Amino acid sequence: MQYIAGGVCAPKGFKAAGVHCGIRRNRSKYDLALIVSDELASAAAVYTQNLVKGAPILVTQKHLENGYARAVIVNSGNANTCNANGIEIAEGMCALVREYTGIREEDVAVASTGVIGQPLSLQPISDGMQSLVDALSADGSVDAANAIMTTDTLLKQFAVEFEVDGVLCSIGGIAKGSGMIHPNMATMLAFLTTDCAISPEMLREALLEDVQDSFNMVSVDGDTSTNDMALILANGLAGNTPIEKKNADYAAFRAGLRAVTQMLARAIAKDGEGATKLIVSKVVGAKDKQTARTVAKSVICSNLFKAAMFGADANWGRVLCAIGYSGADVDVNKIDVSFSSEAGSIAVCSNGVGIPFSEEMASKVLAPSEIRVLIDLCDGGEEATAWGCDLTYDYVKINGDYRT
Amino acid sequence: MQYIAGGVCAPKGFKAAGVHCGIRRNRSKYDLALIVSDELASAAAVYTQNLVKGAPILVTQKHLENGYARAVIVNSGNANTCNANGIEIAEGMCALVREYTGIREEDVAVASTGVIGQPLSLQPISDGMQSLVDALSADGSVDAANAIMTTDTLLKQFAVEFEVDGVLCSIGGIAKGSGMIHPNMATMLAFLTTDCAISPEMLREALLEDVQDSFNMVSVDGDTSTNDMALILANGLAGNTPIEKKNADYAAFRAGLRAVTQMLARAIAKDGEGATKLIVSKVVGAKDKQTARTVAKSVICSNLFKAAMFGADANWGRVLCAIGYSGADVDVNKIDVSFSSEAGSIAVCSNGVGIPFSEEMASKVLAPSEIRVLIDLCDGGEEATAWGCDLTYDYVKINGDYRT
Repeated sequence: MQYIAGGVCAPKGFKAAGVHCGIRRNRSKYDLALIVSDELASAAAVYTQNLVKGAPILVTQKHLENGYARAVIVNSGNANTCNANGIEIAEGMCALVREYTGIREEDVAVASTGVIGQPLSLQPISDGMQSLVDALSADGSVDAANAIMTTDTLLKQFAVEFEVDGVLCSIGGIAKGSGMIHPNMATMLAFLTTDCAISPEMLREALLEDVQDSFNMVSVDGDTSTNDMALILANGLAGNTPIEKKNADYAAFRAGLRAVTQMLARAIAKDGEGATKLIVSKVVGAKDKQTARTVAKSVICSNLFKAAMFGADANWGRVLCAIGYSGADVDVNKIDVSFSSEAGSIAVCSNGVGIPFSEEMASKVLAPSEIRVLIDLCDGGEEATAWGCDLTYDYVKINGDYRT
Repeated sequence: MQYIAGGVCAPKGFKAAGVHCGIRRNRSKYDLALIVSDELASAAAVYTQNLVKGAPILVTQKHLENGYARAVIVNSGNANTCNANGIEIAEGMCALVREYTGIREEDVAVASTGVIGQPLSLQPISDGMQSLVDALSADGSVDAANAIMTTDTLLKQFAVEFEVDGVLCSIGGIAKGSGMIHPNMATMLAFLTTDCAISPEMLREALLEDVQDSFNMVSVDGDTSTNDMALILANGLAGNTPIEKKNADYAAFRAGLRAVTQMLARAIAKDGEGATKLIVSKVVGAKDKQTARTVAKSVICSNLFKAAMFGADANWGRVLCAIGYSGADVDVNKIDVSFSSEAGSIAVCSNGVGIPFSEEMASKVLAPSEIRVLIDLCDGGEEATAWGCDLTYDYVKINGDYRT
């Protein structure tokens, strides 16, 4: 398996585009994206667990009921959530895709991201459709990835190729993150494509399994968005024998999917609103997988720990504190904690008790832009990783006047 | 019922003191407090639900098993948590109280607050005991309240007097809060005293009921501390017929207790680390009490909402979002939201959908230092209130270098 270029257009038979249509006032920021498969594709998605759901979520759920889709249309700058006519607008976006491409509305997924509770007009989208469709190309992944960004500062796209039953397949993905990021059984917007042949049932199963250890292990601020969606289209154009059960081919597909989603998850955390540092929380020695996940995520969600990382302060008591209130059943008297980065590594806690360390060395270890905190529960063989970021002045600044 | 002066010394037969003993380097900051009842008192406490528990929590739990106590010793500047000899030190503090006052160690409660994982020496406490005991007086509540503060900027003490069965009783309390504040079934440090006669069982019951709607409805940063404790001593010196069942006297006592604890809870939220604004989240129209509590607390815990309040941005979509992921079973299409303050009031959302409002007026309403967000679930008759604060640059600053 190896990483390749091309994002969502890396797999055979996918085109993408991004344009500025006018939802945003800033003309240099794209705000409308389209991803299209040449053929009808197996389709699966996971959605936010927030009871307040964006209208596009409800429309996409309906359109994906039969397990197939061909296109995804996405706007940024407006979440189309808590609007009286939200469903009508989301359906209108799908109808525009039919009008300009001939793809049936039922085969179109739709997503929106931006401010909640501001009416979204179809007019700019309608105005931009011709140029969007004209721009569709196998080089369009970067433009699509740009168009779905909000307060993101870094473009997020990855792709891998891998073999299934001797046939070369690929998976590509784009994502946006930044704020209101604390996915629960779904994620902020992530769109994945593959040319691997796989049944809708197996595709759904693979995605559900995957998000447990990728997008659901990311948190920027603990706020689960109303519009989270991770969606995958599999058009089968690689020509492998279709995957219809959990065999070795399924495992190969899962490994490829994981390679893309974990890179996207990392990228979302690294580009958290205001973040200066990616925090990787790795838990080992857990008695079961869920304990490992719960502990890893609780640590990267702690505001206190995140602020300490911003200040390069090796305040490991906050790690212990976050483990203790995580709800996981752990023996706090067995826990070892260490910090590491490209600048070195330093052990700070053993058997739940502090061990002397050099503050000078600790500051050096915590200075770089990627910090790892390793937590050994010394209670079994399971592990998990979560990705977060530091809490900074800029997070407060960005969110003190996001709307205005 | 009316508020009176005196804090924990307002009830008959209580003395308190606070001194600087040297746990902190800053000689002008008190770091050791003592509260003593003239008589053995009914005693009850609730503690952090964090699995990592400060050593003083474990010692106090043991000493309060029989339902009685006479004294509380508290230090700030060091949490005595995650230390190998923590229990020994906490027991040593109780032994020092016995040595200097004659009160049995089993009748002494002990609490600590400050940095986790730094060894606490008995030496400064031992050195300070004589002056601490010498300072004990009926005017000592302010000094004790000062001594338990960490990053707190405001002293927190309240007292009320009320009648039980025709007899005038009083309840007083002091508390500290500021950071790592997200109590779960307990709270940051709060010490309450009363001269009301009440059995240990009824006292415990009253405290357990009370914290559900007082300390457990406060959040500063979502981090449940390892050292939370709310403790009450009832020495019976008011002379009322002892309360031994849930009768009208019990109700009168509960009302008095509530009057003190809710003021302390508000004060803790208002003085949250870095806070510039107290946020009062009131939920009405809930189908049951727990739904009201869950929704109210979810809103004041949202980093995004808290940052918006710092920026006086009426971003009500973040209120809806926080309700939606709270886990409460609500009909999101029925929710009304409005903001109010001394500057006026403004409705922003009706039936889950945005309503037009003046941004200018909204900025005015959100400018003062106390903001109320009113959420009507339109689904029943229950209500709850939670207290929080805005998320500011200073929160990040304080916690980026707390330890160093």
